[in-house]
Amino acid sequence: MRDDLTRILDHQELFRGAPDTLYEPIRYIMSLGGKRLRPVLALMACQLFKGDTGKALLPALGLEVFHNFTLLHDDVMDKADMRRGKPTVHAKWNSNVAILSGDAMFALACRLVCHAPVSCQAAVLDAFNDLAIGVCEGQQYDMDFETRDDVSMAEYMEMIRLKTAVLIAGALKVGALLSGVPAKEIQPLYEYGIKVGLAFQLQDDLLDLYADEAKLGKKLGGDIRENKKTYLYIKAMELLDEVDGIALDQYFKAPVPGNLFDGIAKVKAVKALFEKVDVKSHCEREITALFAEAEAALSHLSPDSIDPEALEILRAFGSALVGREF
Amino acid sequence: MRDDLTRILDHQELFRGAPDTLYEPIRYIMSLGGKRLRPVLALMACQLFKGDTGKALLPALGLEVFHNFTLLHDDVMDKADMRRGKPTVHAKWNSNVAILSGDAMFALACRLVCHAPVSCQAAVLDAFNDLAIGVCEGQQYDMDFETRDDVSMAEYMEMIRLKTAVLIAGALKVGALLSGVPAKEIQPLYEYGIKVGLAFQLQDDLLDLYADEAKLGKKLGGDIRENKKTYLYIKAMELLDEVDGIALDQYFKAPVPGNLFDGIAKVKAVKALFEKVDVKSHCEREITALFAEAEAALSHLSPDSIDPEALEILRAFGSALVGREF
Repeated sequence: MRDDLTRILDHQELFRGAPDTLYEPIRYIMSLGGKRLRPVLALMACQLFKGDTGKALLPALGLEVFHNFTLLHDDVMDKADMRRGKPTVHAKWNSNVAILSGDAMFALACRLVCHAPVSCQAAVLDAFNDLAIGVCEGQQYDMDFETRDDVSMAEYMEMIRLKTAVLIAGALKVGALLSGVPAKEIQPLYEYGIKVGLAFQLQDDLLDLYADEAKLGKKLGGDIRENKKTYLYIKAMELLDEVDGIALDQYFKAPVPGNLFDGIAKVKAVKALFEKVDVKSHCEREITALFAEAEAALSHLSPDSIDPEALEILRAFGSALVGREF
Repeated sequence: MRDDLTRILDHQELFRGAPDTLYEPIRYIMSLGGKRLRPVLALMACQLFKGDTGKALLPALGLEVFHNFTLLHDDVMDKADMRRGKPTVHAKWNSNVAILSGDAMFALACRLVCHAPVSCQAAVLDAFNDLAIGVCEGQQYDMDFETRDDVSMAEYMEMIRLKTAVLIAGALKVGALLSGVPAKEIQPLYEYGIKVGLAFQLQDDLLDLYADEAKLGKKLGGDIRENKKTYLYIKAMELLDEVDGIALDQYFKAPVPGNLFDGIAKVKAVKALFEKVDVKSHCEREITALFAEAEAALSHLSPDSIDPEALEILRAFGSALVGREF
């Protein structure tokens, strides 16, 4: 299934047109790879409800194009120069190119998602529009949080729900709708997607500091260096005493270190503060709890509507996602 | 009809949500007014084919939201600080806000356009996706032309076809499809829209230098000051002798004047070169020819499908658009 996707994406006939100055950056970002998670989830959801995945392929690709559009614009907004070990589009070209090629990718994503059977097109588009608006709302919360130092855990979880989980759950919903199953049957799967999406993001927060550096493919502690307030920071601020809390706050108010040495010292110091209140264990327990809730949601799927083998494949995939090491 | 649109847009319940930091800039740009041209054209096209304009209202609004999204991102890319006499979103907030609120507007536009009757939803969305991709392609050509000094008239006309005319023609097509009429009946109206759109843009090029300054609401010659290669510049370069051509080329290679006095001198000098080969008359003749072609296209509409009174309203509106004074 993922091979089909990769083959189509590598062929990239989808991303040709005039002027090539618009389409070349699109082919570039789409060729950088990535897990192709969202379309794979959509196709798995379609299979789960015994649908024809052939009919779901183009809308599923639309989700991947949409996801890459959001990465492209996020990188402009975050001024991030590297993505998947390569220069980002705005670093390789310029920010105008990244803005406009991103806009075109959003339009191309819409066109791909519209390739749904007429019988479910309206529902598929509703789900797609909902996830698109949700992701924008999540990104805005994320930007708002950068200049606030009083972000609560509840606010953080709502932000990652919108920014990450809504797209994962939305991909499952789109895929399920493409099978032709009525929307009400899908609700447990959507809930599964939200919980898995939240757990996925917390795992991401954790891996930033605790992954095997070789597997991660980048330096550990990037979030700390860039003062990104992830689960680890917010939980530590909840748990640390006043003196340590002030120290942590100061580290996250300092300018982003320009040289690697300062960065290393900062990461080491912050990591020590995190470990004083064992935020790693807190985060792991939260991931475990979210994944258990995700699994519980699946038990509400109507057994007659689903293919049990496809359910096992999806569960294994979700488990691997949440427990991934990079 | 325009009153209905204005009432809905003024009410702005469409543009409320959380976080408000995302939606406030959207309400701001949507409140700056403008001609509401594209939704008006969509509703007129719906009426032309005897459709129910009530059912077309939300998709028509979607076109206006889409158009404003393109303005928002164009202003970021052009670093334009003023729009309709007010600060642009990126000037009032910052460019990240403008990028993200723009993205959200694109998603909101898709959601509005999806409010089409199921029977024509697929065709409406195809038309919308086509115009969205066309506008991005046109904007990319426009940016590419900034750094080229060999843009031919044919290339310029193709650029404005994509950037301006495709949206005007697309608005007519979307409105017509919403009446339920089959796509093949619409083709003459689409051609009308393309020709009117081209004439509209050339009129825009002309008004930049020859409008009544009070009516235009801004200083004349903005395109010249900013080295924008419009119809007037390209036609002048075609017609001027070598010495004058080199002089014009030099003016358009000079940095954008920082102070008003330099700007005035430059506009005056360039205007004199334009008038040496009477590009104003060339432009006016081209507008007249395009409008005649537009009118001719309408004669291919099937008389049984259309409301003759609505046709007269549309023709008068198109004529006013092309002959407008500001």
